[in-house]
Amino acid sequence: MDTLARLETTIARRRSASPDSSYVAKLNARGLPKICEKVGEEATETVIAALTGGDTELIGEAADLLFHLMVLLSAKGIPLSDVLAELDRREGTSGLDEKAARNTD
Amino acid sequence: MDTLARLETTIARRRSASPDSSYVAKLNARGLPKICEKVGEEATETVIAALTGGDTELIGEAADLLFHLMVLLSAKGIPLSDVLAELDRREGTSGLDEKAARNTD
Amino acid sequence: MDTLARLETTIARRRSASPDSSYVAKLNARGLPKICEKVGEEATETVIAALTGGDTELIGEAADLLFHLMVLLSAKGIPLSDVLAELDRREGTSGLDEKAARNTD
Amino acid sequence: MDTLARLETTIARRRSASPDSSYVAKLNARGLPKICEKVGEEATETVIAALTGGDTELIGEAADLLFHLMVLLSAKGIPLSDVLAELDRREGTSGLDEKAARNTD
Repeated sequence: MDTLARLETTIARRRSASPDSSYVAKLNARGLPKICEKVGEEATETVIAALTGGDTELIGEAADLLFHLMVLLSAKGIPLSDVLAELDRREGTSGLDEKAARNTD
Repeated sequence: MDTLARLETTIARRRSASPDSSYVAKLNARGLPKICEKVGEEATETVIAALTGGDTELIGEAADLLFHLMVLLSAKGIPLSDVLAELDRREGTSGLDEKAARNTD
Repeated sequence: MDTLARLETTIARRRSASPDSSYVAKLNARGLPKICEKVGEEATETVIAALTGGDTELIGEAADLLFHLMVLLSAKGIPLSDVLAELDRREGTSGLDEKAARNTD
Repeated sequence: MDTLARLETTIARRRSASPDSSYVAKLNARGLPKICEKVGEEATETVIAALTGGDTELIGEAADLLFHLMVLLSAKGIPLSDVLAELDRREGTSGLDEKAARNTD
């Protein structure tokens, strides 16, 4: 069973734990805006680590970002497999076509 | 072979493609600050989708965020497995201890 | 009449213009989430410019950030003077006390 | 003397204070990446407050964002007047032309 699948299960289980004993439960108790705050914060820290830090720092921040993104998906009831399926779907197209398909700049 | 591993291979291959034919190549040609910009932008869009959008929108933005995070890791020469190993390492601890181990607020 | 006060008046006037002729009207027509997206995007660009760019680039990004923050305040019906009054209020306290008063980490 | 000009003077004075007695001195002692982190964090909190909070919360977050943006400009040796001059310069153009002049999406 791979890391992200196991992490998803762990997060789902912790959501119903006591906020005193689990960081995930505590974040959920504080509400969706707080979880979103952490996602934004960790993304900023990832960017700053990539521009000014060493590899260890970037690895740590990227792990923080992934972790909080998964806490957010869990809080919204979205399985990671839905996000991976979307990535797979895009993989079918390629290069600039793929980007155009996403309709972003 | 799973989605993220396959995506990592695809990104690595596209980095050496022509910027005219590949979005990944184009982003890399524009440099690390531009890649970082996209990570920050997609994180903001993920947060906004979580707070105001539907599931489809959040799935799309989370996929965008994951994709650009992987482009960033690739540009910095960091294998996704290093980030997953860091998540595994933390998994060994639990609840608030795990958070304390990361030494963030 | 100073720059920000004049800019606030301009933004208020443009909000009721045609989206075809005004960027501010166009942003407002796209809705609050789109305006928020721009604030997040410009903040990321400001951070990246501070870490990797020259003064001219940082000045441009800081101006973009201020501009979009004012578009957001205008869209929410909040006068800039309310934000400045809040800054004045904090100015009454000082150093670490001031930070504690804001109750952030 | 207006709020932002006074705040700029206060920040400049506090930068040389002891990190034990001043939040601004403490932030500067922790370095530019830490200041950038705060700018990104406050921008995310501003966006979240705009989408989910009340006026008081948005006013507080916008004040936090402005404050930390000014700490960043001060740390980089850029006077606020340079940013205001850039906003004035753009004000000369208008509507969509003004946006095109900034050459962003």
